[in-house]
Amino acid sequence: MQNVKHSKRDRLVQAALAVTYQQGFQATTLADIAQHAEVPLGNVYYYFRTKEDLGQSLIESLLGRYQTLLQEWNMDPSPKMRIQALIDHVAQERFSLQDHGCPIGSLCTELNKKRGPLSDSAAQLFQLLLTWLENQFKAMGKPNEGHLALQTLSSLQGASLLAHSLHNPQLIEIQTEALSQWLETL
Amino acid sequence: MQNVKHSKRDRLVQAALAVTYQQGFQATTLADIAQHAEVPLGNVYYYFRTKEDLGQSLIESLLGRYQTLLQEWNMDPSPKMRIQALIDHVAQERFSLQDHGCPIGSLCTELNKKRGPLSDSAAQLFQLLLTWLENQFKAMGKPNEGHLALQTLSSLQGASLLAHSLHNPQLIEIQTEALSQWLETL
Repeated sequence: MQNVKHSKRDRLVQAALAVTYQQGFQATTLADIAQHAEVPLGNVYYYFRTKEDLGQSLIESLLGRYQTLLQEWNMDPSPKMRIQALIDHVAQERFSLQDHGCPIGSLCTELNKKRGPLSDSAAQLFQLLLTWLENQFKAMGKPNEGHLALQTLSSLQGASLLAHSLHNPQLIEIQTEALSQWLETL
Repeated sequence: MQNVKHSKRDRLVQAALAVTYQQGFQATTLADIAQHAEVPLGNVYYYFRTKEDLGQSLIESLLGRYQTLLQEWNMDPSPKMRIQALIDHVAQERFSLQDHGCPIGSLCTELNKKRGPLSDSAAQLFQLLLTWLENQFKAMGKPNEGHLALQTLSSLQGASLLAHSLHNPQLIEIQTEALSQWLETL
C-alpha cells in the first residue's frame, strides 16, 4: 500500500515538473497537474495541500535528479572530464533549453520573486552545482576554485537564458564550445 | 488633455514595471497595479484591457529605458569604455539584482514560458543589448564580435541570476570584476 501511495505521489510530482517547466510555476494550477497526470483533482490536493507544498516537492525532485547526474559524472576519471560532462549535458539539452529555459534557472527566477521558505529551498539547487564545480576545480589544483565555478555556472545559465529568450539553440552551442576551449586551457 | 492622459498612462506603466519586477509578471494582477499607482481599477482597464496589453507596454517601456542607457554609454569615447560602462552598470545594480533579478532576464523567463506575440516582443530587449555589444566589439576590430557579445551578455545574465537565486550580491562583484579583467586583455 505504501508503495502504491509512493508511486502515485511520484507520478504527480513528475507531472507537476513537466507542466511547471512548460508553463511556469505561477501559471500552473493544481487542476493543470491533475489533468496532465490524468488523476482526479482531489488526489492532487491529498498530496499537495498548497502551491507551497507543491513547490517544495518540485525542488526536492530536481535536487534528486541533479544529484543522480552529478554521481554519474563523478565516475569520469578526471575532474576536467567531469566538468566537461556538465558542459556536454547543457549542449545536449539545447533544444529543451531553447523551448522552456533551464529547469533550475527558470524555477528559481519565479520562486525568488517572493522571498520565503520556497526561495531558500530553491537556492539549494544552484548551491549543489556550485559546490560540485568548486570541488572539481579544487581537484584540478586551482586555488581560485570558487571564482572558476561561478564563472562556469554563470556562463551556462546566461547562455541558456539567452537561447530561451531569443529562441535560438545555436547560442548554447557557441557558448558551450567556448567554455570547453577555456576549460582546456586551465 | 493629451498630455494628462499620456502622463497618467506613463504613471501606470511605471507602477506596473515596479510591481512586476518585485513580484513577477504572472503573479501581478491589474488590481495590484491600481493599488500601487493609487488610481481606481477602472483606470488601469482603460489603458490596458488585458494582461497581454500590459506586457507589451512593459516591454516598450524597458526598451526605452535601455535605449536611453545605451545612448548615454555611446558618449564614452572608446568602444572598450562603452562595454565597461555596461559592466559597471550591472555592478552598481547588484543589490536590486540580488533582490529581484535582472528586469529583462526575469521578465523574459516568464513571458517565454508561453510562446506568442509577447515572448517575441520580449526578445527585442536582449537583441538590443546583443546588437549594441556586437557593434562595440566590431569597432574594437574583433572579427568574432558575435561570440564576444554573447559571452559578455551570458556572463552578466548568469551572474545576475545566481546572485538573485543565492541571495548574494557579491557574486555580481566577482563576476563583473572578472569580466573587466577579460575585457582589458582584448
